[in-house]
Amino acid sequence: MAITSWQEKAQEARDYRDASLAKVKPPIGPLPLSLPVNSLELPKQHLTPREYELTQEYDAIQLLAMLKEKEVTSEELTRAFLRRAALAQAAVNCVTELMWDDAIERAKFLDAQAEPVGPLHGLPFSVKQQHGMRGKPCHASYVAWIGEPSTINPINDILWDAGCVFYVRTTEPQSTMHLECNNNITGRTVNPYNRNLTPGGSTGGEGALLGYGASVFGMGGDIGGSVRGPASNNGVYGFKPTSKRLPLRGMKCAMIGNETVMPTFGPLTRRRETINLFMDVVLTAEPWRLDPGLFSKSWTPVSLEKPLKVAIQWDDGVVKSHPPMLRALREVAQACRNAGMEVVDWVSYEHEKAWDILSRLYFPDGGLDTIEVIEKSGEPLVPLTEWIINQPGVRKLDIRKLWALCGERDAYRAAHAAHWSDTADADRHEVDVILCPAVPGAAPPHECARCWDYTAQWNLLDYPAVVFPVTYVDAQKDPANAEYTPLNSQDKFNHELYDPNLYGGAPVCLQVV
Amino acid sequence: MAITSWQEKAQEARDYRDASLAKVKPPIGPLPLSLPVNSLELPKQHLTPREYELTQEYDAIQLLAMLKEKEVTSEELTRAFLRRAALAQAAVNCVTELMWDDAIERAKFLDAQAEPVGPLHGLPFSVKQQHGMRGKPCHASYVAWIGEPSTINPINDILWDAGCVFYVRTTEPQSTMHLECNNNITGRTVNPYNRNLTPGGSTGGEGALLGYGASVFGMGGDIGGSVRGPASNNGVYGFKPTSKRLPLRGMKCAMIGNETVMPTFGPLTRRRETINLFMDVVLTAEPWRLDPGLFSKSWTPVSLEKPLKVAIQWDDGVVKSHPPMLRALREVAQACRNAGMEVVDWVSYEHEKAWDILSRLYFPDGGLDTIEVIEKSGEPLVPLTEWIINQPGVRKLDIRKLWALCGERDAYRAAHAAHWSDTADADRHEVDVILCPAVPGAAPPHECARCWDYTAQWNLLDYPAVVFPVTYVDAQKDPANAEYTPLNSQDKFNHELYDPNLYGGAPVCLQVV
Repeated sequence: MAITSWQEKAQEARDYRDASLAKVKPPIGPLPLSLPVNSLELPKQHLTPREYELTQEYDAIQLLAMLKEKEVTSEELTRAFLRRAALAQAAVNCVTELMWDDAIERAKFLDAQAEPVGPLHGLPFSVKQQHGMRGKPCHASYVAWIGEPSTINPINDILWDAGCVFYVRTTEPQSTMHLECNNNITGRTVNPYNRNLTPGGSTGGEGALLGYGASVFGMGGDIGGSVRGPASNNGVYGFKPTSKRLPLRGMKCAMIGNETVMPTFGPLTRRRETINLFMDVVLTAEPWRLDPGLFSKSWTPVSLEKPLKVAIQWDDGVVKSHPPMLRALREVAQACRNAGMEVVDWVSYEHEKAWDILSRLYFPDGGLDTIEVIEKSGEPLVPLTEWIINQPGVRKLDIRKLWALCGERDAYRAAHAAHWSDTADADRHEVDVILCPAVPGAAPPHECARCWDYTAQWNLLDYPAVVFPVTYVDAQKDPANAEYTPLNSQDKFNHELYDPNLYGGAPVCLQVV
Repeated sequence: MAITSWQEKAQEARDYRDASLAKVKPPIGPLPLSLPVNSLELPKQHLTPREYELTQEYDAIQLLAMLKEKEVTSEELTRAFLRRAALAQAAVNCVTELMWDDAIERAKFLDAQAEPVGPLHGLPFSVKQQHGMRGKPCHASYVAWIGEPSTINPINDILWDAGCVFYVRTTEPQSTMHLECNNNITGRTVNPYNRNLTPGGSTGGEGALLGYGASVFGMGGDIGGSVRGPASNNGVYGFKPTSKRLPLRGMKCAMIGNETVMPTFGPLTRRRETINLFMDVVLTAEPWRLDPGLFSKSWTPVSLEKPLKVAIQWDDGVVKSHPPMLRALREVAQACRNAGMEVVDWVSYEHEKAWDILSRLYFPDGGLDTIEVIEKSGEPLVPLTEWIINQPGVRKLDIRKLWALCGERDAYRAAHAAHWSDTADADRHEVDVILCPAVPGAAPPHECARCWDYTAQWNLLDYPAVVFPVTYVDAQKDPANAEYTPLNSQDKFNHELYDPNLYGGAPVCLQVV
């Protein structure tokens, strides 16, 4: 019996992807041999005006209204997003499977219904490959798992029952524990604004797809910033809810059962209101009836009764934010003041300690479970997998050491909660939200995303956090700070990454916690 | 330096207790040398008529109304409960510390306030010793921990801020992992209805205290039935909320950090409405601000909009309920039908498998952490500690085996949820609640409480469950079933325990899940 090398297995997955892309009619292209640094000029050239309009101009909620008013059919809309997704793949390598036949069949079915089947009736919806898809394989970016079936994913089923059209599945990095998007199967996904920068990860394919305008509504997963990092790097909205609100089953990964820090699904969108729509659709389906481990609580968007007290986290005390991020913070802080809000400075509470606890909680088996899946096929570890598993504190623990580590986590959580409560000392008004970066700048160059803390802090504390777009890097407004003296080696690494010309035009987002 | 034996250390804790009881004025007694089987005849003889009335006739909510109307002062009420608690200690051995001076000082302080400090203003409140008390020691019934300080307990602080008077701390078993109440420090707590039966555990001291009428409102903890078992054995209400609703910090025990199955605090009360009061007081304090791991959701009592569909779990498929329990189920089922509810039979879903998973989750370190605390002082393991640690499946696991076990747990939870949902197949009306025993009969004789499943099943699934009193064992109505053929050895053990004369007069309760 011939032994299949890992390279041959990886090729099978790429062949599967390419066969799915070959269905596109009319086909995309031809594209220039040398792709432009900024891929966003391509859609206008390679799509019909109507396709461009449908995919470029509207948000999910507007498209749903148009579908309802029959200004567009689900089939026409789906075909437009399918073609733009195919173009996105050619431009930034973010697709693992284009669901051409399935999506068009589904759209036709929905168009034929007399009544809407649910609140997402006819809307194209994109999903990270790792989350599986009924009847499709799911490898979660491990070569060893290529050809394995998807597990049942209740949240996919809920979205389907609400009437969406699944049309594309997107890339993620090896181990899904990078803030970038590179693996041995599909290779590297790049940022649509600048192919020399990363789209982020682990939900990097979704991030790039939304940044590229090839999706208005997608879903990723987040255990350290995997929804919010890509949202920030690609200039879209991304939300990480509190854990145990959304069903988690169906998320294929190593270390299933490791629950000392929990991942959660979360949406990526073009507009804030669509986040509410996502949460409302999923929670109205009462997922706690399927998974008793979830909290039974419907989605209640906040309505502000008095002006917020907003605390600005300029940096985390470890790694300083880049100039365009500091400008974004200043601009939004001023906008908050103009809107009558109180704006104060946030004092970060021992983020280095938080990261030490969290990185040890990520891999209490010393990374063994992950490494075994990688070694099973013979594929090599990619550099950022090696980097995260080799964080200084990571050790293989026995159960009692794990319990002690959970104790450290809980003590940190309680201390941070007290730190937050103490903000009410002066005026009896506790800080309502923290406004902070999700990454310390715009999207970094490849292999350089090593600053988890701005997002991961809120996973350790299990606070909900949302990313929203603010501005773009502007070489004029955001010169490098040549006078700056780095605080430490991590800060030096991050500081030296910044070059206003390299980053120019890249989106800059902020995070509300 | 002289080495203190474990016996001497245990004596120190008893001396501490006895010194606290010596403060009682006027002192209790003298009691008969040979205590009666049923201790409930003593209070009328040994308390003043007013003390008896105050402690016997009212529920917490009624007492709060009387305090508000100044029909009684907090001091008078507290002194009455202090004296009845001292009598309870003499009769059934349920007290670790009587807080005579502290409680009276607190009551006087509250009486002196112009306005109530909170919704529990002036009400005596009893607490399990393990939960600690500001400024007091806490040994959690391990000899090794005698003399150690209490850790901060946010739920105690919330109750205090609501105006309660802590006046007594109560017993629990060694390791707090028994459904009885025996340890090497305070010895055995017995059932107030019948000293040959157990009050249950681990919140056995509270159960006995409430059963004895020496408390109207107390708090225990529950990871397998430790609130509900004692409530059932002593004929009072007991509630186990879903985990992560109430703050857990301050519950002193071994294996801190083991969170694959979570304990929770819970109230014991004389009336159903007082459970709502407890939950409302604690959740109105927004404990999630102190502990970000908690769910932020206020307490919303259920109001019934249409008749319930009630499923009766006659037994768990493993151990059959005793005759008085079956009668209680029949009586309540009939009452439900009379109230217009639909009543169906519940089919238990693989409870043996559930117990196997749960018992392994209790001790994934093979019991090592618990045994070490016990061995540290040299005290011996009491029989039920040995029994629970030696459940057939219990093994010391490495982290990856623990993850696999969590996977088994989640698969069981999902399968059970589907089993429940399937009850809607016939008529599109899902079962709303399960009505079932909390123990397969009345309180069992000492050393015989080996049936965890009726309560622990709902800990594994993390469903809220409440126990309420129904009836008493009646030798006439509840003869033994001589014809019965046991299903298995556990069932045989349980079946042979039943003797209508031994159990006569003991309370019988049911559980709603």
